[in-house]
Amino acid sequence: MKIDGTHFRSIWREAGGTVKIIDQRWLPHELRIVALNSRADFATAIRDMWVRGAPLIGATAAYGVAVQMAADPSDASLAQTWDVLHETRPTAINLRWALDEMTRVLKPLPPADRAKAAFARAAEICDEDVETNRMIGVHGLELIRDIAAQKGGGRVNVLTHCNAGWLATVDWGTATSPIYHALEAGIDVHVFVDETRPRNQGAQLTAWEMNHHGVSHDLIVDNAGGHLMQHGEVDLVIVGTDRTTAQGDVCNKIGTYLKALAAADNNVPFYVALPSPTIDWTVRDGVAEIPIEERGAAEITHVQGRMPSGVVGLVQISPDGSPARNPAFDVTPARLVSGLITERGIAPANAAGLAAMFPDRATGASA
Amino acid sequence: MKIDGTHFRSIWREAGGTVKIIDQRWLPHELRIVALNSRADFATAIRDMWVRGAPLIGATAAYGVAVQMAADPSDASLAQTWDVLHETRPTAINLRWALDEMTRVLKPLPPADRAKAAFARAAEICDEDVETNRMIGVHGLELIRDIAAQKGGGRVNVLTHCNAGWLATVDWGTATSPIYHALEAGIDVHVFVDETRPRNQGAQLTAWEMNHHGVSHDLIVDNAGGHLMQHGEVDLVIVGTDRTTAQGDVCNKIGTYLKALAAADNNVPFYVALPSPTIDWTVRDGVAEIPIEERGAAEITHVQGRMPSGVVGLVQISPDGSPARNPAFDVTPARLVSGLITERGIAPANAAGLAAMFPDRATGASA
Repeated sequence: MKIDGTHFRSIWREAGGTVKIIDQRWLPHELRIVALNSRADFATAIRDMWVRGAPLIGATAAYGVAVQMAADPSDASLAQTWDVLHETRPTAINLRWALDEMTRVLKPLPPADRAKAAFARAAEICDEDVETNRMIGVHGLELIRDIAAQKGGGRVNVLTHCNAGWLATVDWGTATSPIYHALEAGIDVHVFVDETRPRNQGAQLTAWEMNHHGVSHDLIVDNAGGHLMQHGEVDLVIVGTDRTTAQGDVCNKIGTYLKALAAADNNVPFYVALPSPTIDWTVRDGVAEIPIEERGAAEITHVQGRMPSGVVGLVQISPDGSPARNPAFDVTPARLVSGLITERGIAPANAAGLAAMFPDRATGASA
Repeated sequence: MKIDGTHFRSIWREAGGTVKIIDQRWLPHELRIVALNSRADFATAIRDMWVRGAPLIGATAAYGVAVQMAADPSDASLAQTWDVLHETRPTAINLRWALDEMTRVLKPLPPADRAKAAFARAAEICDEDVETNRMIGVHGLELIRDIAAQKGGGRVNVLTHCNAGWLATVDWGTATSPIYHALEAGIDVHVFVDETRPRNQGAQLTAWEMNHHGVSHDLIVDNAGGHLMQHGEVDLVIVGTDRTTAQGDVCNKIGTYLKALAAADNNVPFYVALPSPTIDWTVRDGVAEIPIEERGAAEITHVQGRMPSGVVGLVQISPDGSPARNPAFDVTPARLVSGLITERGIAPANAAGLAAMFPDRATGASA
């Protein structure tokens, strides 16, 4: 999407062949664009979270393979690259998928042909992600358009949690794609951005996206959404997801469940935007079956921000010695989800609805 | 309660006659005790939030009047003191009540008798607050004791939001009083402390209280409570309130409503601890009738903490130019409240239940 009027993707290859990314560690305080010139650069960028978000991690890994093929297209190099990049974030499903996909395409080719084919496939992977997210936006736009019509063309207020924006994907984002599409359709859309403690991806990334693309928005604390919904200030909630089960339970950033409860209590539609590979057909009951990662206490006891000196650093907000618990995700039961916005359309959040939209994939799970 | 083994109140008069407080602006990073020696000192302490919490503000104002009476007990001085202290936080009900009460007691007395009477009444106001909160703890303890018994003496996990602790009162606190009583009764009690953005009173004050009194606790982000309740990790929620209506709707720090929704969804009892003067008998429907203060955006865009240099300061977490909305309170409808823990006992959260417990006050509202 746009940064102050200029269109960007989160990863791109320049005319001269150089792959560049936005080093997201410096957002929202500074826009730093960096070139990734070697496999080691790509490994660092993924491991140290210069890039984050499942689709973007996959795309970055694909380009990492391509850059390495330009340096050394041998079988040994290809195999080693899978290992080197995979170990940077071993639990990221998209990372593994992208590495497998690149290997599948490249392995049968003579080494001399691999670099060109690798760059081509990496570009395709990026374009496929963009197209998936574009279609999520096309379908989600209809929800916003309907609300705008019900309000006689009045402002549509959307609440979102965490960053399921273009910075987490190659472009458009997932939860944000309907919003960007609504803006392009001339709808008066306003976004309430949950700051999303502990890592503040809402304040640091989503608010930055909205601010620089020119989307009307307000940053709010995670505590505020219920009050706003009680007073009719939210028309629609759209969030992303890390993993959605075959029956429509939604695992997403911690705090999503609380917003779903508030939406249900106030008759506010609560939608989840997801590329279909995010559906885990092997799991049904998300609350019972999905293990939730507990991260370190320092994310709770400390907050990152720009100090008065201009330096970005951490401040401690809690007493020395107070322990903390840090579950990183929660599961929103399907009963609280109005629908799942996928690239194929909006599916009801239940096993039958998902299976009907994805008959080619759902067979195992619906058995 | 205790700070590292020594008992403290949040305001006290020393044997030599000096009134001292904890300057709470430096918590949780530093314990600073300061003497308030003049009316101007008291005005600054209230206005600049060295002390906060309705009961403590009232007690501080009472001692402020007494200190001024020692300097100048004239009628003019008494009247001027009401004005000077009242304007420090004009919306604080307890502040006005304490100033009116001191004036009521002192005005009929000859000036020469006023200082002594004023110190005596200020001390009584403090003791009355302590006794009210003690009784809240005595009644709330029974809830914790019952859960401990149901769990065969196992650990009782209590979640609380914001600071309704001894630092907001003279001692015991409101929501924390049952917890401190449970600890004294030998019950294995553990507290999940919501950090309570935007001002982080949970992280800065409640966690500090728990840490120094020696209560087992974990600091959590406001987003985490729903997940913990889903997984049976919370047995009981107890929060405070700024204002409870005649039908039992509870106005409290923003985010309380989300925890009440999660408690209801997971069959976790949700109780509110309150001294009965917090009940506003003139209001019934809290969501419709209570105006919610919107505070400045800087509380959202910036976070206070201890910088690596050791200095306590603000860091900016959001992009330059992103606007923010900051509703400071929300209203939890009575239907989500399991009961109201008052100094007289635990009342059902409805008009009949409150009126039955407070027949001497409820007549107007139940008409």
